[in-house]
Amino acid sequence: MKLYDYTMAPSPRRARMFLAEKGLEPEIVQVDLRASAQLKPEFLAINPQATVPVLVLDDGQAITENLAIAAYLEAAYPEPPLLGTTPLEKARVLQWNSRAEFEGLLAVAEVLRNGHPAFAKRAITGTDDYEQIPQLAERGRARVGRFWGVLEQRLAQSPFVSGERFGMADITAVVAVDFAKVVRLAPPESCTSIRRWHEAMRARPSYGA
Amino acid sequence: MKLYDYTMAPSPRRARMFLAEKGLEPEIVQVDLRASAQLKPEFLAINPQATVPVLVLDDGQAITENLAIAAYLEAAYPEPPLLGTTPLEKARVLQWNSRAEFEGLLAVAEVLRNGHPAFAKRAITGTDDYEQIPQLAERGRARVGRFWGVLEQRLAQSPFVSGERFGMADITAVVAVDFAKVVRLAPPESCTSIRRWHEAMRARPSYGA
Repeated sequence: MKLYDYTMAPSPRRARMFLAEKGLEPEIVQVDLRASAQLKPEFLAINPQATVPVLVLDDGQAITENLAIAAYLEAAYPEPPLLGTTPLEKARVLQWNSRAEFEGLLAVAEVLRNGHPAFAKRAITGTDDYEQIPQLAERGRARVGRFWGVLEQRLAQSPFVSGERFGMADITAVVAVDFAKVVRLAPPESCTSIRRWHEAMRARPSYGA
Repeated sequence: MKLYDYTMAPSPRRARMFLAEKGLEPEIVQVDLRASAQLKPEFLAINPQATVPVLVLDDGQAITENLAIAAYLEAAYPEPPLLGTTPLEKARVLQWNSRAEFEGLLAVAEVLRNGHPAFAKRAITGTDDYEQIPQLAERGRARVGRFWGVLEQRLAQSPFVSGERFGMADITAVVAVDFAKVVRLAPPESCTSIRRWHEAMRARPSYGA
């Protein structure tokens, strides 16, 4: 297996953490997004969407999208389970993963990509240029703040984001929290449950993957 | 099982179709979004996020988010499989489901919710008001058009969106196509592969669910 990656980007970090939790160590290929390496023909031949992460299997099949990479790995390497075991647990993992993705990660990305000059015309990942929308950056700020409230409340009730066990939703949420620091929107100190959980996340070997 | 639903909305339609493909017929409870019934205390007690669909199990557990509902149903009622069987098939279903969701459905929603007066201050689902962003409606139009190109190319290569078998990605994509008609952004006539596939979708009993 080979992972097309970019160390500083939040999306491939999710895949790296998932792989690390499974105890897998694929070959890592850096795609330098700051140098627009994802738009070069060599990489577009691997992923025409021009996004990372991409997991390339030994038979050459390329898998894009974090959920898809997770589904592949969970089926091919079931232990330890990261997408839940019972029907309800599976539901809770994807329920909270969806929320962490849409209300957390995507909102932070909206702030960064629509507000930072480095992303001028690059408001969305991929091959196509999209102009920044300053109002979307502003809306993103409000959404991120609200999501910390949701996450704090959730983590006051359960040790991990999707329930009693660590799983993919924790990965997505911790990547969202750390990504938010880039735009100075980290959860406030008053979120003591997020802090407790974040310390537990930081103690896992996958955190530094 | 009980499904909190709203016939005219695209998100709960995905859950209805998934349930129908599994041969399941839960009790249906309409939540009249046009009358803001999702914001009333009775419904917020079921789903504080104020969104549909919600699948409520016989023991009272409430599951929100289409992916979570799908994961529950697939695990509890494995036949027929709608999320793939082999590791690679599972990856392809979620890969294309993610794309149909983000590049298709979400883009159409951006057009409608940021452009139509009926959604003033309701640019995002949920309890919180968000002002419309006209530029986001405009960007959504461009994104929807590009996604039809992606989908057409994909369906020129394979009978179903995620490969050789019908699955969740077909549901999400067909809901996106039909939802786009509301904002007059249906795929152009020149997309003959989409048309062929859409006819096959229309012939399935789940289409009218």
